Amino acid sequence: MQRIVVLAGGIGGARFLRGLKSAAPDADITVIGNTGDDIHLFGLKVCPDLDTVMYTLGGGIHEEQGWGRTGETFAVKEELAAYGVGPGWFGLGDRDFATHIVRTQMLAAGYPLSAVTEALCERWQPGVRLIPMSDDRVETHVMTDDPAAPGGRKAIHFQEYWVRLRAEVPAHAIVPVGADEAKPAPGVLEALAEADVILFPPSNPVVSVGTILAVPGVRDAVAASAAPVVGLSPIVGDAPVRGMADKVLAAVGVESTAAAVARHYGSGLIDGWLVDTVDAGSVPDVEAAGIRCRAVPLMMTDVEATARMAAEALSLAAEVRA
Amino acid sequence: MQRIVVLAGGIGGARFLRGLKSAAPDADITVIGNTGDDIHLFGLKVCPDLDTVMYTLGGGIHEEQGWGRTGETFAVKEELAAYGVGPGWFGLGDRDFATHIVRTQMLAAGYPLSAVTEALCERWQPGVRLIPMSDDRVETHVMTDDPAAPGGRKAIHFQEYWVRLRAEVPAHAIVPVGADEAKPAPGVLEALAEADVILFPPSNPVVSVGTILAVPGVRDAVAASAAPVVGLSPIVGDAPVRGMADKVLAAVGVESTAAAVARHYGSGLIDGWLVDTVDAGSVPDVEAAGIRCRAVPLMMTDVEATARMAAEALSLAAEVRA
Repeated sequence: MQRIVVLAGGIGGARFLRGLKSAAPDADITVIGNTGDDIHLFGLKVCPDLDTVMYTLGGGIHEEQGWGRTGETFAVKEELAAYGVGPGWFGLGDRDFATHIVRTQMLAAGYPLSAVTEALCERWQPGVRLIPMSDDRVETHVMTDDPAAPGGRKAIHFQEYWVRLRAEVPAHAIVPVGADEAKPAPGVLEALAEADVILFPPSNPVVSVGTILAVPGVRDAVAASAAPVVGLSPIVGDAPVRGMADKVLAAVGVESTAAAVARHYGSGLIDGWLVDTVDAGSVPDVEAAGIRCRAVPLMMTDVEATARMAAEALSLAAEVRA
Repeated sequence: MQRIVVLAGGIGGARFLRGLKSAAPDADITVIGNTGDDIHLFGLKVCPDLDTVMYTLGGGIHEEQGWGRTGETFAVKEELAAYGVGPGWFGLGDRDFATHIVRTQMLAAGYPLSAVTEALCERWQPGVRLIPMSDDRVETHVMTDDPAAPGGRKAIHFQEYWVRLRAEVPAHAIVPVGADEAKPAPGVLEALAEADVILFPPSNPVVSVGTILAVPGVRDAVAASAAPVVGLSPIVGDAPVRGMADKVLAAVGVESTAAAVARHYGSGLIDGWLVDTVDAGSVPDVEAAGIRCRAVPLMMTDVEATARMAAEALSLAAEVRA
């Protein structure tokens, strides 16, 4: 059985995984999930990326929105607002709340996040093994302008930057706070070492895949793996397919093009790279950087289109391996 | 302005208070609320009696039910059940959840329950000053039979006995765990000392009023008060008007009659006692125990009927005082 390891963020990663499961129904898939955008709200531990993967693969996702639960209601949030308790900008639904309540209770009882995630997945049966990148707290902060702060800048939580400010203010740096001291969760390094293929889905290269790679040991394990490492560009035609990856790429000094993201990962890390057909012109550029590259349709319009993308990624991996 | 202090449990106390506000719209009413039936559920601190008073007087109560919120939904609870997380027997609604989330967050931030209750009441504007009997944890336990337990008996949380088991198993003792070491919350003893009238509404004499009186200093403050102390019988025609007070009265060796409850409180504590007209025959019995007694209609069928009961209680207090 082919062992596939995927480093996944939220919506993009989750949708890609659904296509991958369809393209490789017999594969043994391990997902290393980003927890850098986790946030504590109302005393509860919220893991947006892990939940998006779990809900998407488990059939509970709000399809159009891409995050949160289908059939969701917002009574708790409305009531919290009536008490003057916020933040109101984070869309926590009633069904979603239950997940965070269970998680918070289990964490308080002493279980590590990886064990909690496994327990939550017992209900959702995502059909993959979902492991948080780390059981330790890592929190992505964004350095923004604040005339009132000393030095004129202030670090804010990624969710505040992303959801509340919609990435519309300048981001001067992206800092995965706590990453230096974090250890990979149990199973992360083992999965990478034993992988037949490692995939980077079209997730955000900075705040999703980049944060996972920032956990000490993970980048080395990916680089050292005998398995081919293939990524899919989240940038199509010089703009992110979804989200605001261009904003955070700028913060780390990377151009918002499919080729620039490939070079950002580098040939030391990835062996293959898929760009969209509209970016076919950048293939030689990527190959010049020592990365095998192919241009294929990269729009995840439905599960079938996404499955074809995943199949192309596996096919490129096989080609690289051979 | 007349200063009235009421020792209140949940539904009975809350409904009585609504009548009292109507009967004495200009009075300064302080409510000392029972917290012995508080329970920790899903990592949240739930205070059923305080909330019932707050919701009832603040216009948020589910009228027919007597507890919980009007227009309530149960998405969180259903989801928790889908995760296999219980208890399912406690009816926590989505709107109600928000109250417990705010309370738990404030407690975790270091505020005492009395300050938290005051903050919650800023939203609900109950028109009374609501103080928990204590900021310390007191938890009413009920000793029940359990053949599997050492000694054949097991103490369970009052809510488990009351809500899950519907008081249908024998109760051998009622123990307000932690009461011995509890201190009255700030304002409790002061309110009792400065009261013009002290009322015991037709709340449960054992697990509501009795628990409040079990907080060291409270019983003495009531007994020592210069104000008349008047109670209303929760037993009408030898049966509780609502709830299952007879079961817990039996556990403390008190007969389930209006007169027996008056004697249980005793003339050292109460000066006046109202029984229902159907119990008019017990008036001499109560008066023989040194307690002024009157028979009036005691069914809280609506706010008007309840206001008449409250007016009778205030009138009896004035008579006792004179």
